[in-house]
Amino acid sequence: MSRRDQAPAALFEAALGGDRASTARLLSFIERGGQAAREVGRIAHAHSGEAYTVGLTGAPGSGKSTLTSALITHLRSLDLEVAVLAIDPSSPFTGGAILGDRVRMQEHATDAGVFIRSMATRGHLGGLSLATPEAVRLLDAIGRRWILVETVGVGQVEVEIAGKADTTVVVVNPGWGDSVQANKAGLMEIADVFVINKADRNGVDATRRDLEQMLDLSDLPSDAWRPPILPAVATTGVGVVEVWDAVVRHREHVTENGVLAERRAFRTREELREIVAQRLREKAREVCTGERWDELSGSVVAHTVDPWTAADEMLAPVDA
Amino acid sequence: MSRRDQAPAALFEAALGGDRASTARLLSFIERGGQAAREVGRIAHAHSGEAYTVGLTGAPGSGKSTLTSALITHLRSLDLEVAVLAIDPSSPFTGGAILGDRVRMQEHATDAGVFIRSMATRGHLGGLSLATPEAVRLLDAIGRRWILVETVGVGQVEVEIAGKADTTVVVVNPGWGDSVQANKAGLMEIADVFVINKADRNGVDATRRDLEQMLDLSDLPSDAWRPPILPAVATTGVGVVEVWDAVVRHREHVTENGVLAERRAFRTREELREIVAQRLREKAREVCTGERWDELSGSVVAHTVDPWTAADEMLAPVDA
Repeated sequence: MSRRDQAPAALFEAALGGDRASTARLLSFIERGGQAAREVGRIAHAHSGEAYTVGLTGAPGSGKSTLTSALITHLRSLDLEVAVLAIDPSSPFTGGAILGDRVRMQEHATDAGVFIRSMATRGHLGGLSLATPEAVRLLDAIGRRWILVETVGVGQVEVEIAGKADTTVVVVNPGWGDSVQANKAGLMEIADVFVINKADRNGVDATRRDLEQMLDLSDLPSDAWRPPILPAVATTGVGVVEVWDAVVRHREHVTENGVLAERRAFRTREELREIVAQRLREKAREVCTGERWDELSGSVVAHTVDPWTAADEMLAPVDA
Repeated sequence: MSRRDQAPAALFEAALGGDRASTARLLSFIERGGQAAREVGRIAHAHSGEAYTVGLTGAPGSGKSTLTSALITHLRSLDLEVAVLAIDPSSPFTGGAILGDRVRMQEHATDAGVFIRSMATRGHLGGLSLATPEAVRLLDAIGRRWILVETVGVGQVEVEIAGKADTTVVVVNPGWGDSVQANKAGLMEIADVFVINKADRNGVDATRRDLEQMLDLSDLPSDAWRPPILPAVATTGVGVVEVWDAVVRHREHVTENGVLAERRAFRTREELREIVAQRLREKAREVCTGERWDELSGSVVAHTVDPWTAADEMLAPVDA
């Protein structure tokens, strides 16, 4: 029996044993959504809850992938295993690669302690905002303790996904203001750590002042975590250790003050709400097609039935 | 019994007889949504189908209200009755006024052949996109044959609302490019008639060329209606007759080629779809509150139930 035909439960056993191809197959189920994805989710849920997630986001060209790759190298030097999800909403066809298609990450391709995957949705009706936590849960369940989630900080959805990590790293560049103007507020809101990458260029001090000023304006309570602003040159590895240390300090901070548990509970409830909403959207689509829809909507067009009565009739099974 | 306590059916009889306060009261029911709005809608639906709607939209300051007022004057000179809905999403508290709060329209305040109403949603869960067609239907049902729907062409929703009229007039100004850059495509798509208002200013020719060019690019079929581009100075009344004549020509065009009937059927189906979706959104909110929600979402947070099983349980009555 090839992997393609195997049921989620068998694939999960193999993935637990370290079979990377089975993990990749399970992630493909998640990307496609539907019944198989739900089955994967159920199995993974029971085994999950130990992993720590780190979100990385920033404008295209800010060097997120390079920084991610440098962080992987650092984690491996500490003998930590790591999984990376590179969320790629712009290319629905990149999903399915076992190794990230991002050139910068290729150096880790042969390292068994690193699992990299480009994620896209190829049918999951809940989109990346539902598929991503499912993928994280799977990687958690098969024993990865550190999961990096990299997203392009352009669209609202991607920023939200990065912000749903336990610790979120926002990557900017000297003179960042122009490139991410529209998203500044969103990025400020989710950042636990700022990295000024490409810090060998001009404008680091001005960018730092800009960020400090925005942090001052956000009026954090005195006992709150204030995001550190760290210069780095990811291509040479300068500053990468400090970035990781800040992630670890943030983890300790939110673990001790209970914010981590609160955030996770909040995220879980939000995900559940989204699953319920998604199921009802599917129901609405289901209701608004077919013969019965044609007939009832035709009657409304012909003015023989009013739209509320037609809606009542169509939703009768739902309202029961 | 005061009007406040009267049932929709009694108010509708009075409104049919010409009582403006009853009409206003029925529109308030629609603004507030819920059961009473649905009752008004049912009554109105049975009596509607004769009115013709004209949408007017444009950037703030383009002179939409002044043009609307000038069109009312022209319609009254032709002895036509007219109703105006001024959609006002930015001020949730302006609704309820029998006469528009817009200074330019005050001159029609004492004319029994004119009915003006500022519309906002004060509770209607479907928002203005569902409340507006309901309000139009009511004005139609009480016998208004021309209904002008004025919206600020800024947000997507308002542009959509104006675009759902039988004929849509887009008001621009000389040098409009800068003020509505973000919305240009949306406005191009809905326009049946362009008015370059404030045409006594510089830049009319450039604006006309700009619009013609965009129309050329939109690659209309040879038998399609090509939106005329008409200069006007609404404050003095210059060009207003030509604008109205263009509306009437467009009406004849879409009536003869069947596009009007198609558009109306499409709009009706879209409204029905939106009602169904709205009802399911209400259902989702209903499901995700209360004791049962607290208990089940708590179990998911505690990892004793997975989110799909919890969603199944919460939606069990709906899926039945």
